[in-house]
Amino acid sequence: MTPNIAAAKAALSHLDIETSAAAVKAKSRDFFWYSPVLKARLDNVMADFVVSPRTEADIIEILKTCYTHDVPVTTRGSGTGNYGQAMPLAGGCILHLRHMAEVKEVHPGRVIVEPGCLLKDLDAACQAHSGQEIRMFSSTWATATIGGFIAGGSGGVGSCTWGSLRDLGNIIRLRVVTMEAEPRVLELRGDDLARVSHAYGTNGIITELEMPLAPAYDWVQMFVATDDFYDAAALAEDLANEDGILIKLATVFEAPIAKDFFQRVAPYVTQDTHLVALMVAPHSMDGFETFLRRRPAAKVIYRSDTAEWARKPGLVFEYGWNHTTLRALKVDPSITYLQVRYGGTAQIKLIEEMRDALSPEVLQHLEVMREAGKVVFAGLSLVKFTTEERLDEIIRMHEEAGAMVFNPHRYTLEEGGRQTVDDRQLAFKKEADPKGLLNPGKMISWDVPDWDYTRMYSYAKIREVGRS
Amino acid sequence: MTPNIAAAKAALSHLDIETSAAAVKAKSRDFFWYSPVLKARLDNVMADFVVSPRTEADIIEILKTCYTHDVPVTTRGSGTGNYGQAMPLAGGCILHLRHMAEVKEVHPGRVIVEPGCLLKDLDAACQAHSGQEIRMFSSTWATATIGGFIAGGSGGVGSCTWGSLRDLGNIIRLRVVTMEAEPRVLELRGDDLARVSHAYGTNGIITELEMPLAPAYDWVQMFVATDDFYDAAALAEDLANEDGILIKLATVFEAPIAKDFFQRVAPYVTQDTHLVALMVAPHSMDGFETFLRRRPAAKVIYRSDTAEWARKPGLVFEYGWNHTTLRALKVDPSITYLQVRYGGTAQIKLIEEMRDALSPEVLQHLEVMREAGKVVFAGLSLVKFTTEERLDEIIRMHEEAGAMVFNPHRYTLEEGGRQTVDDRQLAFKKEADPKGLLNPGKMISWDVPDWDYTRMYSYAKIREVGRS
Ligand SMILES: Cc1cc2nc3c(=O)[nH]c(=O)nc-3n(C[C@H](O)[C@H](O)[C@H](O)COP(=O)(O)OP(=O)(O)OC[C@H]3O[C@@H](n4cnc5c(N)ncnc54)[C@H](O)[C@@H]3O)c2cc1C
Ligand SMILES: Cc1cc2nc3c(=O)[nH]c(=O)nc-3n(C[C@H](O)[C@H](O)[C@H](O)COP(=O)(O)OP(=O)(O)OC[C@H]3O[C@@H](n4cnc5c(N)ncnc54)[C@H](O)[C@@H]3O)c2cc1C
Repeated sequence: MTPNIAAAKAALSHLDIETSAAAVKAKSRDFFWYSPVLKARLDNVMADFVVSPRTEADIIEILKTCYTHDVPVTTRGSGTGNYGQAMPLAGGCILHLRHMAEVKEVHPGRVIVEPGCLLKDLDAACQAHSGQEIRMFSSTWATATIGGFIAGGSGGVGSCTWGSLRDLGNIIRLRVVTMEAEPRVLELRGDDLARVSHAYGTNGIITELEMPLAPAYDWVQMFVATDDFYDAAALAEDLANEDGILIKLATVFEAPIAKDFFQRVAPYVTQDTHLVALMVAPHSMDGFETFLRRRPAAKVIYRSDTAEWARKPGLVFEYGWNHTTLRALKVDPSITYLQVRYGGTAQIKLIEEMRDALSPEVLQHLEVMREAGKVVFAGLSLVKFTTEERLDEIIRMHEEAGAMVFNPHRYTLEEGGRQTVDDRQLAFKKEADPKGLLNPGKMISWDVPDWDYTRMYSYAKIREVGRS
Repeated sequence: MTPNIAAAKAALSHLDIETSAAAVKAKSRDFFWYSPVLKARLDNVMADFVVSPRTEADIIEILKTCYTHDVPVTTRGSGTGNYGQAMPLAGGCILHLRHMAEVKEVHPGRVIVEPGCLLKDLDAACQAHSGQEIRMFSSTWATATIGGFIAGGSGGVGSCTWGSLRDLGNIIRLRVVTMEAEPRVLELRGDDLARVSHAYGTNGIITELEMPLAPAYDWVQMFVATDDFYDAAALAEDLANEDGILIKLATVFEAPIAKDFFQRVAPYVTQDTHLVALMVAPHSMDGFETFLRRRPAAKVIYRSDTAEWARKPGLVFEYGWNHTTLRALKVDPSITYLQVRYGGTAQIKLIEEMRDALSPEVLQHLEVMREAGKVVFAGLSLVKFTTEERLDEIIRMHEEAGAMVFNPHRYTLEEGGRQTVDDRQLAFKKEADPKGLLNPGKMISWDVPDWDYTRMYSYAKIREVGRS
């Protein structure tokens, strides 16, 4: 099965197609470099051409053409994925969705939108229409697309209230085009959503999404400082457990993250300041202030509605979620991170154990989430990277203590997750992408069904230079 | 301190005042008769006159006048309180708030309203203004006032998401007039709210409220049937723990409550049908249906959006909360109820224990609530009443098993609650009602500071006939 790139390009030449090496190279990169492990492996990956459809009919034509000519297709929203989700490992076509960004319908509690719409544009449209916004978004709100968030993300700002994207009710409907001789258009709902959400575009292209909405508020963004790490953690957890106080973000940063990595915050904190970032609904501020008065150890050092800082810090959520690592990386390129699932009633004990064993090599960055109705901490711990061996050892230490780690230093669906095949996604790929042309190399179970996960998977057909 | 009723009436005669025995008697009754215990004790209580202010200035004048003439004042919203909260034990003046019902301002997430506004009118105004509604309401939504709900209620429909009225953030601000020679107008926020919320109007009259709002949706109301009680309970609990599925009500009724007491539901259930009443946001129905497919034991027998019942059941929440008892009472006047706090991780075990020991003398009616961030069951168990002694024994059995009971067969603040004085309320009464004229007899700690709660409190100055 050798791709006939030239034939595909010729057949698609009437569309918005890019073939210059510079343009193709730029669109063949996402935030994979965020991981030192992935950076070493994916730096020279490159597609052959980029095509940007304007309609679902264009997508059908592109898929049909690439199917005929055995050309791999890797879909791209904005390319902010940081596990190399959008890296075209086998070259071929980048299907770029920037032109498909229309907000089609807004109703009470839901919106229908095209996949290429930026999260921030989607929010602006819903806000303007009827004071609504999406329930949750990745901290890349300003740059990422809704399609990329659903296909490549898992949750974020808002997950402290609404849980994760995969939870029932957080996606209503996905319209998907298959990669076959005659591409089909499917409407997926309910259990079927799990086939393509968080499947990295390996088994279908999302052409339309129906998402639930929440009311849009002028969230008060805050930084709260404490001298004790556990005061900061308790504040975030307890606040999230206040049923009458509506929040959208509660993030905890161990010292000296704020001092060392948050430039605009640094003047207001010391090396020993632990920080909590919060977004609270304006009509909950009275309740929040009452809550805070009961915790004299905590001090609000920044409030977006009354800010007196000479240099404003910008959006507070752009310090949380995966942005924490990004900020740290910019100051100290040797920093990387881990995704840790604490949870359970003993979560603070577990965090304490990890802190005692590993701080400051590993610094705690905690995000409050809801999971099965309960407030839990997700850890996006900052790690001072030395070697891959030490990183693996740190992961092992977590797992031995009972903290599950989702490895962000892997580009496959399975290794970043629970290291098991998602049968629904695999079964759907067999049906919807029989030639295995969609985002090749990302679903191990497709290529090597009996992979044992003791070592890092390396896609055999990885292609390191452009062939166009 | 003998009240000079005649002088007060004369001084207030330019206001909307009623003095005819029939009118005064009608407004001297609330839903106290709901409890066989209270019915026996309060049936002949009656005020001397009713005055209905139109403005806060009127209220100040009325309080000042009654203060001068030592006339007791019992405030009345709609009189739906079922613990005798609004019964004028010492006679005197009924301050009726029906004319003060204006919705003053609606903003994103909050509303400012006068106390006499009916809950349903408040919702209609917020819905019309900007698609909003109050977070929670008593099941007496159609008839009760917002002031009465705050002063006499505790939570209800919506508490499965937002917790109770007393939780931080569920009331923003109360404006209160005191009962002094020169009445003061106070604005209470934060911790100070606890002074007057759920204080039965014993220490100040609420003249304006600022309440948080949530988005208004066209909630899908449902009845779901199961053959096993624990399937029904698990369904309600698990659904409330689905973070992505937005609900406003989840109520469980043990069989044969539905068959015996819910007339319009009866044709669709059997003597053995356990029932769950639900309100689910329309945009969460896809998620809900997926959730339900995983529970083949549960069957939706009624959906408000696709209903095919010949005789519609009306609003589903009017089967839950305190309406369950009302419906049962109408069929079997010997039914009464208990308010039980289960909660904790072993709550289902506790419920099972009570059921094993007491069903069918006590039938489980459970309401899902949020408490400190967790889903818990509040029990409003139906009790086949025989004697006061047996009722006390049933309460004791609950308490010995570890289920706290809030006794709804008492008219004082303390006995219906945790049997302790709320110091904040008492302290505020000393300051705001120095003569003890506001709703006399309802705060034991005011009259008999060292009451020991081993027997039912009986207000010494209870007055059984009208004196006007
Ligand atoms: C600084 C930073 C912060 C981040 N914060 C978060 C966070 O808070 N939460 C979170 O979940 N993630 C986070 N991420 C990861 C990523 O940014 C998000 O998942 C983001 O929403 C992806 O959107 P995108 O448009 O950039 O998608 P891309 O990176 O372009 O694509 C992501 C994946 O989806 C596939 N895809 C894109 N569109 C479609 C489509 N229409 N149909 C099928 N497949 C498609 C791509 O092939 C790729 O596999 C972060 C990343 C960075 C670098
Ligand atoms: C069938 C039924 C169902 C019910 N369901 C619920 C429920 O789900 N949840 C719940 O919490 N309760 C419930 N209740 C109790 C009661 O109906 C509610 O608390 C209701 O909201 C009270 O409103 P109201 O206007 O009737 O108040 P009223 O009965 O008139 O007054 C209640 C108390 O508040 C005081 N008060 C009223 N207005 C003011 C004011 N402006 N300032 C100071 N004090 C004031 C009164 O003096 C009285 O003590 C129920 C009762 C019945 C009969």
